[in-house]
Amino acid sequence: MMTIAVSRRTMLTTLLAAGCCCCWGSTWAQTPSDPLPSWNEGAAKKSITDFVARVTTAGSSDFVPVPERIATFDNDGTLWAEQPIYFQIQFAFDRAKELAPQHPEWKTRQPFKALLAGDHKALAAQGEKALFEILRVTHTGMSTEAFTKDVTEWITTARHPRFKRLYTDLVYQPMLELLAYLRANGFKTFIVSGGTIEFMRAWTERVYGIPPEQVVGSSFETKYQFNDGNPRLMREPKIDFIDDKAGKPVGIGKFIGRRPVFAFGNSDGDQQMLEWTAAGNNARFMGLVHHTDAEREWAYDRNSHVGRLDKAWDEAVRRGWLVVDMKNDWKVIFPFEK
Amino acid sequence: MMTIAVSRRTMLTTLLAAGCCCCWGSTWAQTPSDPLPSWNEGAAKKSITDFVARVTTAGSSDFVPVPERIATFDNDGTLWAEQPIYFQIQFAFDRAKELAPQHPEWKTRQPFKALLAGDHKALAAQGEKALFEILRVTHTGMSTEAFTKDVTEWITTARHPRFKRLYTDLVYQPMLELLAYLRANGFKTFIVSGGTIEFMRAWTERVYGIPPEQVVGSSFETKYQFNDGNPRLMREPKIDFIDDKAGKPVGIGKFIGRRPVFAFGNSDGDQQMLEWTAAGNNARFMGLVHHTDAEREWAYDRNSHVGRLDKAWDEAVRRGWLVVDMKNDWKVIFPFEK
Repeated sequence: MMTIAVSRRTMLTTLLAAGCCCCWGSTWAQTPSDPLPSWNEGAAKKSITDFVARVTTAGSSDFVPVPERIATFDNDGTLWAEQPIYFQIQFAFDRAKELAPQHPEWKTRQPFKALLAGDHKALAAQGEKALFEILRVTHTGMSTEAFTKDVTEWITTARHPRFKRLYTDLVYQPMLELLAYLRANGFKTFIVSGGTIEFMRAWTERVYGIPPEQVVGSSFETKYQFNDGNPRLMREPKIDFIDDKAGKPVGIGKFIGRRPVFAFGNSDGDQQMLEWTAAGNNARFMGLVHHTDAEREWAYDRNSHVGRLDKAWDEAVRRGWLVVDMKNDWKVIFPFEK
Repeated sequence: MMTIAVSRRTMLTTLLAAGCCCCWGSTWAQTPSDPLPSWNEGAAKKSITDFVARVTTAGSSDFVPVPERIATFDNDGTLWAEQPIYFQIQFAFDRAKELAPQHPEWKTRQPFKALLAGDHKALAAQGEKALFEILRVTHTGMSTEAFTKDVTEWITTARHPRFKRLYTDLVYQPMLELLAYLRANGFKTFIVSGGTIEFMRAWTERVYGIPPEQVVGSSFETKYQFNDGNPRLMREPKIDFIDDKAGKPVGIGKFIGRRPVFAFGNSDGDQQMLEWTAAGNNARFMGLVHHTDAEREWAYDRNSHVGRLDKAWDEAVRRGWLVVDMKNDWKVIFPFEK
């Protein structure tokens, strides 16, 4: 009975996505429409649609039952841009500047002194410890609800320095289409990102259609406080989990508990997620976004300070995983180009 | 557009659950059937169906949009039995005995000596450290896949000492109906249990219809090993997270990222989950299973060594949360009674 319900559900999901109105329980005519209009015709697009057709065709030896159709996506550089610095770091910098008037001592205390002076070189020279200190004051010490409010305010107002647009305008249109296409074919889409969970959860449902419970990421510890009937989850200045590199398969195991059959990343931080995906039985799809378009977006790979694509690229080429060439494979990069 | 898709999906889900065949897009006659046939008519059942009607009626001031319909259930004592000892502990004991021939030194080493001699009193006297040692040898040191295989073998063969049935036969029929009823009304059902995640994930989809990615629980750390192209997640002898008491709201925040609108437990370990649920805005439902039926199941509460129900009971009574009286509210307890 579960099998029947599942296969009916798939039919219906496909139907809803196609926007086709017809009689349930009998045959129907499906609207012939391109599910990936922002992808140029070619090998990249074909490899995706061929894979989805194979795993969703009942009776095919590659058929994957709906509950096992797990697709995982890195976020930074895979679903949205990550230059000139990771957007969450920009949020931390902006937020620290906003908090500065309440902390006059920051004027003479590092790393805040360098941050407030706009001296990014001096800031970078202070290394990871400095970054953690800025994350600590902007990401912890408040309730989860207060933090979500901080993120929501920033994400709906702050502008990207190059494009002068909201950061959520810098999502990749072809990837939005890919997410919707997979969901229409019975896949459950997850984010598996090095960014922190609650920074993403504040907006992923609205922007990607990915609900909070399908966001896996790095996290700070939280602590439950009862507060005389007004309970809160307080964000503690202690890292709970780093969801990057070898942490990605760990995060997938912990939060999802199934191995993905479809995984997409863009950097060496995603290599282990793709390897973990590839090592499963049956049909698998592994993809990388290669940033090759300096004009419409950015061009960077082996020597980049963010989203370095080096070892994962070599492995992808060697093992025949898809490497998307943004410049040539994507008709449109950002939704606002349409 | 998302709203339309969601409300259509709800209609369809309800439809599928009702087993009603009709024309999609036009009106239909819904099969009038009782979604909770194993619940006796009365205040308990009515409080559930009234709540679901209120939060799913468009235009109602208590209406909850589908994506926010999060329902969380404790497992031990709420969805299945937990006497005479938690079933996962029984698994650990059985598994340790199975492993004993490979460890002749256990005959003289505690806590194994007491376990192998069947001396549960001596075992209990050794406290939590002894229990952790038995968990360590049975739950860690292997890959996640090997552990899932161990659990699957046990759960499909081991028999409960009193009922001489599979442990998965000792799930509560009224709760299975409640899970299905909530899902048919657009709720996403989660387990939030003190038991460990991977012990539950091995069978919750088959038994409860709850997929691995909707199981929140305690966990051991895992470590990614690449092993020359044969990657594994190895289970480490280190506790990662305890999903009990104040850990339950923390686990909900971490794994789900939304506050439940519906939560069910049975013991003081669930008190904080219910408090966290209750503190949300708008309509909320909090329930406790009270074990009152020594004949068909067990009767225990304030002084029980497992599933103690004491402070949470007092709070439930004071705040008007549902306290299910198993003996009087449930027509049938286990599916095999039908």
